[in-house]
Amino acid sequence: MATRRAGWVADPDGLNPLAILNGHWPAPPPQPCRNVHEWLEKARADVLFEASSLVPQTGQPAIEHLKAALELGAHAITANKGPIVHAFRELATLAHEKQKKFLYEATVMDGIPIFSLFPLGLPATALQSFAGVLNSTTNVVLTEIEKGRSFDEAVKRAQAIGVVETDPAADIDGWDSAVKVAALAIVLMGVPVRLEQVQRTGIRELSEEKIRSVRAAGMRYKLVCRAARRGDSVDCTVQPELLLASDPLANLEGTSSAIRFDLDVFSFSLVEHNPGIEATAYGLLADFLRAVQP
Amino acid sequence: MATRRAGWVADPDGLNPLAILNGHWPAPPPQPCRNVHEWLEKARADVLFEASSLVPQTGQPAIEHLKAALELGAHAITANKGPIVHAFRELATLAHEKQKKFLYEATVMDGIPIFSLFPLGLPATALQSFAGVLNSTTNVVLTEIEKGRSFDEAVKRAQAIGVVETDPAADIDGWDSAVKVAALAIVLMGVPVRLEQVQRTGIRELSEEKIRSVRAAGMRYKLVCRAARRGDSVDCTVQPELLLASDPLANLEGTSSAIRFDLDVFSFSLVEHNPGIEATAYGLLADFLRAVQP
Repeated sequence: MATRRAGWVADPDGLNPLAILNGHWPAPPPQPCRNVHEWLEKARADVLFEASSLVPQTGQPAIEHLKAALELGAHAITANKGPIVHAFRELATLAHEKQKKFLYEATVMDGIPIFSLFPLGLPATALQSFAGVLNSTTNVVLTEIEKGRSFDEAVKRAQAIGVVETDPAADIDGWDSAVKVAALAIVLMGVPVRLEQVQRTGIRELSEEKIRSVRAAGMRYKLVCRAARRGDSVDCTVQPELLLASDPLANLEGTSSAIRFDLDVFSFSLVEHNPGIEATAYGLLADFLRAVQP
Repeated sequence: MATRRAGWVADPDGLNPLAILNGHWPAPPPQPCRNVHEWLEKARADVLFEASSLVPQTGQPAIEHLKAALELGAHAITANKGPIVHAFRELATLAHEKQKKFLYEATVMDGIPIFSLFPLGLPATALQSFAGVLNSTTNVVLTEIEKGRSFDEAVKRAQAIGVVETDPAADIDGWDSAVKVAALAIVLMGVPVRLEQVQRTGIRELSEEKIRSVRAAGMRYKLVCRAARRGDSVDCTVQPELLLASDPLANLEGTSSAIRFDLDVFSFSLVEHNPGIEATAYGLLADFLRAVQP
């Protein structure tokens, strides 16, 4: 276990998760680990769960953590989408070489299977485009503004329910959404989209009055992610869009999210209804089961 | 190939699908096959695609076709949900014994992965309940009545677009939905629900005026399938329900369908947007790929 609070704690015999969940942190080791490599070796890890905060522009230090795990022969499982956008090819190749798994189901829509759905559930299809509302914070903020709160109050409300990234700007300015749309395009469309290729507009410039007046007229603003193939590349955008109330992407409250996939043979949507933090934890657990089950 | 029109046509060297699609049916064989066993043996089939019409009360003759295929050592792939409700255990056991696949992804929501989603995408979850609008015909009929057509005109309209089961009563009286809810409960909840245990009410008794008046008030009737665990059993119902316009199950037009799954860890929905008949064909193709790929 490694956290900002506890440091790098390693015990090859295992830690006591119940004790830790109850606030009894393990005593600091006599010779503390100095880095992720030492820590993984000392723990004799079979699998690493990477759940550090998103750094949109670099994907670090999560990439180094995942590389270290794979190099040591451990499965690398992440809830952090930065490494997909900044090092997908490298990590996937390394995992293949080491015959270990690099898995990341929890990075988009928590435990909802997206990345594990496509290869087995939708063989021989081509994904032409997708559109989704994938960021909980902007969802909560827009809903609170609709209800009459100010922008700043609405952000505080989102922070109070615990959905905001460590830096709120990562959500409000569309970075979280941009990383998600790029990650989905890279994995599901096989195109190496770079983060700076995503046209990104956040919700900061939307006026509170406008948000409330369109709501009164039966419409809603949502921060919408879109990707569409154009020739060999993929056009990716993140921007506030005015949606009709009948649009499935409009009827999302709280931490709910939704995505529509347009395949060559048919179109379908996935909707996640107000998940809690355990849904993200489940995504990591499900990846673990996929990694270790034959 | 076997159809009502062509009879049992078998050629171990293969038929010409393009010719058949263009209306050039193969000449009748000198010694016609007399039954499914003779036909499969003569064709030396590796896989059977079963797409006969639903007979809700018995699941026949599809069950016999699928059994014959598995007994002969061919994969058995079906778009007919009757066999799941009337012979799931038997067919799954036989497939296991013969080390062949019994697959049925196309039976509910066409090519949308449901049956193939759960084992790999959602390991270690428990499905507590689900609710869906899964029958296109009643969807189309209710929408046409909302628009001002009579019940009989609306049924003709649904028949014209080709979504109606061979016997329209199978849709209108909720048989199609009842078989689907039972099939989902049997496979995804592991409970051997019998068709007669599904409480079933169709849309025949809904008055046209009522359908139109609630629509004017922002609500809609839909034929809703529900299943919920109760102890060791599952309560299954099919009945018209009055839904708010904001309900994701209410905003379904044409051949669209949707289902919400409530797991122990989170809830999610799948929505299929106005599929054509090729979406069902894709479901069969995807099963074929799952059967033959390692």
